[in-house]
Amino acid sequence: MLNATIDADLFRESIDVIAALVTECRLHTGPDGIRMRAVDTANVAMVSMELRKDAFEPFSATPGELGIDIAKMKNILSMMSKGDAITLSLPEGGQKLEISFRSYRYSITLLDANTIRKDPNPPTIELPGIAVIAGDTLNNAIKAAAVVSDKIALGIDPKAESFYMSAEGDIDHIKLQLVKDELKSLKAAEARSLFSLDYLKDMGKVMGKSAEVEVHLGIDHPVRFKFDFADGNGHAEYLLAPRIEAD
Amino acid sequence: MLNATIDADLFRESIDVIAALVTECRLHTGPDGIRMRAVDTANVAMVSMELRKDAFEPFSATPGELGIDIAKMKNILSMMSKGDAITLSLPEGGQKLEISFRSYRYSITLLDANTIRKDPNPPTIELPGIAVIAGDTLNNAIKAAAVVSDKIALGIDPKAESFYMSAEGDIDHIKLQLVKDELKSLKAAEARSLFSLDYLKDMGKVMGKSAEVEVHLGIDHPVRFKFDFADGNGHAEYLLAPRIEAD
Amino acid sequence: MLNATIDADLFRESIDVIAALVTECRLHTGPDGIRMRAVDTANVAMVSMELRKDAFEPFSATPGELGIDIAKMKNILSMMSKGDAITLSLPEGGQKLEISFRSYRYSITLLDANTIRKDPNPPTIELPGIAVIAGDTLNNAIKAAAVVSDKIALGIDPKAESFYMSAEGDIDHIKLQLVKDELKSLKAAEARSLFSLDYLKDMGKVMGKSAEVEVHLGIDHPVRFKFDFADGNGHAEYLLAPRIEAD
Repeated sequence: MLNATIDADLFRESIDVIAALVTECRLHTGPDGIRMRAVDTANVAMVSMELRKDAFEPFSATPGELGIDIAKMKNILSMMSKGDAITLSLPEGGQKLEISFRSYRYSITLLDANTIRKDPNPPTIELPGIAVIAGDTLNNAIKAAAVVSDKIALGIDPKAESFYMSAEGDIDHIKLQLVKDELKSLKAAEARSLFSLDYLKDMGKVMGKSAEVEVHLGIDHPVRFKFDFADGNGHAEYLLAPRIEAD
Repeated sequence: MLNATIDADLFRESIDVIAALVTECRLHTGPDGIRMRAVDTANVAMVSMELRKDAFEPFSATPGELGIDIAKMKNILSMMSKGDAITLSLPEGGQKLEISFRSYRYSITLLDANTIRKDPNPPTIELPGIAVIAGDTLNNAIKAAAVVSDKIALGIDPKAESFYMSAEGDIDHIKLQLVKDELKSLKAAEARSLFSLDYLKDMGKVMGKSAEVEVHLGIDHPVRFKFDFADGNGHAEYLLAPRIEAD
Repeated sequence: MLNATIDADLFRESIDVIAALVTECRLHTGPDGIRMRAVDTANVAMVSMELRKDAFEPFSATPGELGIDIAKMKNILSMMSKGDAITLSLPEGGQKLEISFRSYRYSITLLDANTIRKDPNPPTIELPGIAVIAGDTLNNAIKAAAVVSDKIALGIDPKAESFYMSAEGDIDHIKLQLVKDELKSLKAAEARSLFSLDYLKDMGKVMGKSAEVEVHLGIDHPVRFKFDFADGNGHAEYLLAPRIEAD
């Protein structure tokens, strides 16, 4: 059972977090809010998102699992205007999610949750270095790197007390180095890993709207991005596997 | 003979009304203004438009029939800026319409009116229900329906004193219900017909700019939309045939 | 050797001037600034551009020739924001141009100047008529002509003391006539030549941003456009060969 009302923009932010990686997901409802975790089809990246009940008003839900077609949800959200309040409701055991706003009432048949990949286990990875940077700085760096290459190295240089990203094209390269006072904060530890820009570009668009993003890094290890959204009532994480550096 | 000056935006609105359905038309001039009526190539929809002489300053015309290439007219109008005054002039018996604005002078060869379909007769159809709604509400409803389906039902529920539209997709549906105080006015009468969204989407874009649109409906009958434009000096009607409801 | 810092917008204007005609060029550096001259691949049009050292702060350069990939340069410039200062630096004898702004550092391998067409000689052509008009008026006239044709005649009518442009389509035509007080200035001399709109459209977009453009014309002769950019520290010329008027 779900009966919840939320500002259309906040809900759109939540769906955008998910849409950067997957086209469908299992959304878990419960008395504390909604949450999801999924890996992309290539098993390279993972997204987890939770939206606490305080983002809604009112909110009531029993534990449940909703199979959501993310693309369809984005389509419906595109009809909404700034300031619209949207109400999601699903009766106990129901298979049709009703989405209403203004005088509209959409009735969406849920996907069979059994046809959607099971939720991945939360991985336990030790990532010693942490740089905290503004979301738009991170997104701009990703876009800048895409001009010369299709991959990017992210790293921390403990001696220079800096976070850096660098991209090598066939004949050109670009480097961005942010020293401590250009960062929100830095937990310095030797770190450097290479990542595919394909994934990062989509993640970057979402993270670009956050005031700050934690970037957790190791040596040839995945990167974990942590950030809040929905006025602090939403929390998201992206985990992205490294690429092998070909020398 | 035609010699008429009009604000570029008002003339653009008139051409947009026509362009939603046909790519060429016979424009009738006369001492009271200009008017046209045409059916689309598939004989599914009809547009009629009149622009009274008060929309122009000055305006003088003798009775005549101009073959207009609507697409070309839109191209020329795209060159004009807000506030431009455009002058249309055609000498008696002439075949070249001169369109001038600022220091520009376009000379457009008219289409041979004999090569354009004859004007349809004004149909006499009794449509007992009438809902008057804001143009942007109507346009948004059409766009919302297009998310789930390619056809839409428009109807009036006399008991609930409401106007509704609903669209059924393969597994999803959407319904918009507007009760009396959400409407400009309602003449309640049992009504419900199904229409192709292809046509309605183009009409909706035009009608979305009008403060109010009269929607005339019957049971499995055409829908007639009536609305004003050009600061009240233009009047337009769209008539759209219903689709058979497959059950 | 080059070491120069400039406002990103001013540098973008300079690159746009070149990009209207060629995709790569030899950029000449020297103590007074940078300059280039190139013809397009079809030998129909020529661009010359100079950006004086006063546009930079600081600026120091020894005589040199840089092979520039214009498309790549535009890509990098697209990453910059209003107000960014960008620094170009190339060590003596170096083959990698470093472009830095904010905390970014791009390293671009220069093209081998020997693989780029040699600079054309500055042509000596006598063009007796000169009209000086606002850049946006010129650009709008070019766009208006493109609605009916793919070529345009530019001319000066000494009797009417006017500059005109006219375009003939298969059945339509457009004419724009600007008399003396609609022009910045006019050196009247009988002139009329026909030009391809393909070239003019790209040039027009660039010239449209200039407060005034000198248009030098003769009879069935090339047209020369002269205009300043970069707050007066840049100067550019386009030369375009006429088309044969088919009668």
